[in-house]
Amino acid sequence: MKKTIAIDMDGVLADIETHFIDWYERDYGVKVNREDMLGVLEPDGFPDKTAVKRFVYTPGFFRTIPVMPGAVEAVKKLMETYEVYVVSAAMEFPQCLSEKQEWLQEHFPFISWRNIVFCGDKSIIGTDYMIDDHCKNLDFCRGKAIMFTAAHNVYQNHHQRVDNWNDVLAFLTAEEVPA
Amino acid sequence: MKKTIAIDMDGVLADIETHFIDWYERDYGVKVNREDMLGVLEPDGFPDKTAVKRFVYTPGFFRTIPVMPGAVEAVKKLMETYEVYVVSAAMEFPQCLSEKQEWLQEHFPFISWRNIVFCGDKSIIGTDYMIDDHCKNLDFCRGKAIMFTAAHNVYQNHHQRVDNWNDVLAFLTAEEVPA
Repeated sequence: MKKTIAIDMDGVLADIETHFIDWYERDYGVKVNREDMLGVLEPDGFPDKTAVKRFVYTPGFFRTIPVMPGAVEAVKKLMETYEVYVVSAAMEFPQCLSEKQEWLQEHFPFISWRNIVFCGDKSIIGTDYMIDDHCKNLDFCRGKAIMFTAAHNVYQNHHQRVDNWNDVLAFLTAEEVPA
Repeated sequence: MKKTIAIDMDGVLADIETHFIDWYERDYGVKVNREDMLGVLEPDGFPDKTAVKRFVYTPGFFRTIPVMPGAVEAVKKLMETYEVYVVSAAMEFPQCLSEKQEWLQEHFPFISWRNIVFCGDKSIIGTDYMIDDHCKNLDFCRGKAIMFTAAHNVYQNHHQRVDNWNDVLAFLTAEEVPA
């Protein structure tokens, strides 16, 4: 049986950081540097700390997030070896369920509805691996945790880290090598 | 730490069987007997075998399913002892996501968004117990499977069976007794 991987959407498949920066620039005329967002929660990375919360409740926000570079090709590659599940903590923003579904349908149409999970707390997800950008999800995961680098998590180092989708492929390919 | 239970919606929290019968009678003027639905897949329990599929794709169907008798009180009781998750295979009918969410908000407002999971395949759900009416979910569950009786499953006897919510409480209370 194939090993299973749970892959997060925001910050992993979807480049939400770039989307926050773009929307902030559009609305405030200020282009925030990624360097100013390092190690702080996403809302605190912007001069107006109420902006992020407003964005995530704006219709269309989740539907229009750009795909994380390399994600489509990497997920296709992983699906050859692993049973891949998209596991998104979508319940926190209930209005985004249909947007997230449409987004996946557009960018990852090769992922079956059988392999999509919208949840709250991820602690009951029992996959062999979990790729996520948040400790709140990785700290309680049952399989091997893989932290996908985001500005907000750069100082958290208690999980295996990957910086991009090439890193994910390299790490998981190494995992497959028999001991 | 509390033990975890995954509870299905359709056929367990939501009385979808009664809803099918009611909608069929409304549209066809024929009240189907539950006895005629025993041991057959839901669509095959009705004279017009296309009706069920049409119902589940009709806006409002999932929003208006009656609550399974005793479910609200039993879930409240279980939450005293267990970490209760609602786990629904909602991805099969994507249009129903928001209806299911609103239904839960109306009938089970005491269940946090953190404890709601809309998924496809349930095999990655790692709870200690799973209460469901379908073998396709129970056969691959990682914890103890509990089959909630429905007309379609009456001849499947390889899982612990409960006939109603009183049975669920009785079974899980017995489980708590120290050996």
